[in-house]
Amino acid sequence: MALEVYFIGGSPYAWRVMLGLALKGLEYKAIELHASKGEHKTPEYLAKNPRGKVPVLKDGELTMYESLAILAYLDRKYPEAPLFGASPEEAALVWQRTMEVESYLLPVISGIARPIFTGAIEGQEEAINEHIIVLKAELERYSEWLDGQDFLAGNVPGAADFTLYPPLALLSRVVGALQNDKIDTGFLPITGSFPALAAWMARIEAIDGFDTTYPPHWREAKAAE
Amino acid sequence: MALEVYFIGGSPYAWRVMLGLALKGLEYKAIELHASKGEHKTPEYLAKNPRGKVPVLKDGELTMYESLAILAYLDRKYPEAPLFGASPEEAALVWQRTMEVESYLLPVISGIARPIFTGAIEGQEEAINEHIIVLKAELERYSEWLDGQDFLAGNVPGAADFTLYPPLALLSRVVGALQNDKIDTGFLPITGSFPALAAWMARIEAIDGFDTTYPPHWREAKAAE
Repeated sequence: MALEVYFIGGSPYAWRVMLGLALKGLEYKAIELHASKGEHKTPEYLAKNPRGKVPVLKDGELTMYESLAILAYLDRKYPEAPLFGASPEEAALVWQRTMEVESYLLPVISGIARPIFTGAIEGQEEAINEHIIVLKAELERYSEWLDGQDFLAGNVPGAADFTLYPPLALLSRVVGALQNDKIDTGFLPITGSFPALAAWMARIEAIDGFDTTYPPHWREAKAAE
Repeated sequence: MALEVYFIGGSPYAWRVMLGLALKGLEYKAIELHASKGEHKTPEYLAKNPRGKVPVLKDGELTMYESLAILAYLDRKYPEAPLFGASPEEAALVWQRTMEVESYLLPVISGIARPIFTGAIEGQEEAINEHIIVLKAELERYSEWLDGQDFLAGNVPGAADFTLYPPLALLSRVVGALQNDKIDTGFLPITGSFPALAAWMARIEAIDGFDTTYPPHWREAKAAE
């Protein structure tokens, strides 16, 4: 098998690449790294990505990193189905919305999820709530993008969708489980506050191959419920 | 003239687009906005970019924003000279390095330049110096990329180069003029600390059309020296 993706379960950056591969119907080997064991900081892995982050893509002789770069590469190498539109004008909108999610949403998700993951919530509630204000404004905006169309940049899924879906799934899972009444969790569940986004998430989940991209330990946790 | 770019003088995001247009030899009208007058927050401008940021590109009927999205669009619409490589494998490296500069350098430049621009340096020296430590590590890395080649992703200039050049020029100008001995300005001038980067900057400055991209008020300041 030529294509390999190194991922950490639940990493939005790795997940977007796996969704891109699924859309294109490309077979790949997913190699899971466990951050808790430092598997993304071993000399072997740092030789693949000196920044010690996921994802890494291997395609034959090529080894590369940076998730949006990987999606751009895959779209050049394997044009069908397109991740960045079928024409320059479609590419303009897909790229614009991809970069908006990347630049304005991902830092906010990180600002909310990191203190929760590290268990360092106490005293951080105010900072987290400030991020949540920005988050809600972004989610409003993305809902508007869906007016009259099924996906973020048109009626077919692409890179913008795959950039937004994983952090939203992560957020719902992480904040949804939170027991802290100082943090404004009133924007969840997404189904209640942002029905257009909830319907869009269901459309992403219906894409062929979506299931194979789902974080393994999330699936195990669900099965154990 | 079909192509128009809205810019703020010295904005690294707008400048990269103008460098891309210069490389392709595309004529465009550059429309300068003055942030001090709030010209990027007028209703007319917010209709072009609701986030109130530069650049905006107009190309006939198309209006778009997000600078890397604009470069990606231009490369699809006007393939010569390529900004993102001539093959999928070249695209992989150009995109990877573009995203590295975007993700790891630009936030650091902002963390250094913003307090200086707003005159709020006092008490911020420690935070600025922490950014400078990261900055120097990044500059080391970019110097290594230039080993054996003229530009960041090969022997022709492209999007990675145009993403790195403007913030470095900005940094040299802003930090170079700084009079504050608590801030570590020892990495400047670039010529002394990072000769490979300095030689590379000179190569960028030699590109046809570079002069037309140069921030107007920087040119005026130079002429007045």
